[in-house]
Amino acid sequence: MPSAPVDREFLALERELAVFLRRARAQSGEMAREVHPELEPAAYGLFVRLDDAGPQRATELAGYFGVGKATMSRQLRALEDLGLVARDPDPADGRASLVRLTEEGRNRFRRVRDARRERYVRKLADWDRAEVAELARLLNHFNVRSEG
Amino acid sequence: MPSAPVDREFLALERELAVFLRRARAQSGEMAREVHPELEPAAYGLFVRLDDAGPQRATELAGYFGVGKATMSRQLRALEDLGLVARDPDPADGRASLVRLTEEGRNRFRRVRDARRERYVRKLADWDRAEVAELARLLNHFNVRSEG
Repeated sequence: MPSAPVDREFLALERELAVFLRRARAQSGEMAREVHPELEPAAYGLFVRLDDAGPQRATELAGYFGVGKATMSRQLRALEDLGLVARDPDPADGRASLVRLTEEGRNRFRRVRDARRERYVRKLADWDRAEVAELARLLNHFNVRSEG
Repeated sequence: MPSAPVDREFLALERELAVFLRRARAQSGEMAREVHPELEPAAYGLFVRLDDAGPQRATELAGYFGVGKATMSRQLRALEDLGLVARDPDPADGRASLVRLTEEGRNRFRRVRDARRERYVRKLADWDRAEVAELARLLNHFNVRSEG
């Protein structure tokens, strides 16, 4: 079965997404280590999610990141041992628990995130705001279309 | 030290990049497993790179992905054990070796990549080509600017 020909617009987009992705992965690793030297790269995304969406169950986090429950438990245990996340009983169901950032975890995360934002904003400072907004709009369109 | 205020254009862009990134991570995991059920998520990027850039040293791959030599050796060994990559002596230096995809590895990778491309192209089929090209152009600009 021959593949459908893929237009050069799509190939160009695929290439740029791959460059972004590779760099973002390497940076996640660096930022996780900046939050705490013992963190693995995947931990950075967990901080982003817990800071954005607030306390939630470990199973919700596993679903959000598309990883198994065992993997998520292991990642969370490492963060708990470092005092960066904690668990409280879920008011909706006393047998379940909600994962949250500790104050220490939130402070460390926000410091790293704010420093990274400032680097980005500085690098992109002379880029036309209308182009930044247009990139966000097109990427949203891409994200919505390519979902599921 | 108060942070510089971050404009809403940048925050919108950051949000869309985060959505893309999270989804791409989950998909890398799925695609790696489609290539071979025993592969870990990071393996997918290795196939992309070896297929694009050809045989190369393990240290080059480690540098490209921003991981340590030990991590890269472990990943490559798993792929070698499955017969998906192989090593040949480096003609430029007989003590070094070059990593390459085996025919089996390349075939399995390309089947998964082509199927994914077709899904993307189908989902984006009714999107104006000029907008796809514009997204690629702006993302390239972003990648070049935010480098380093």
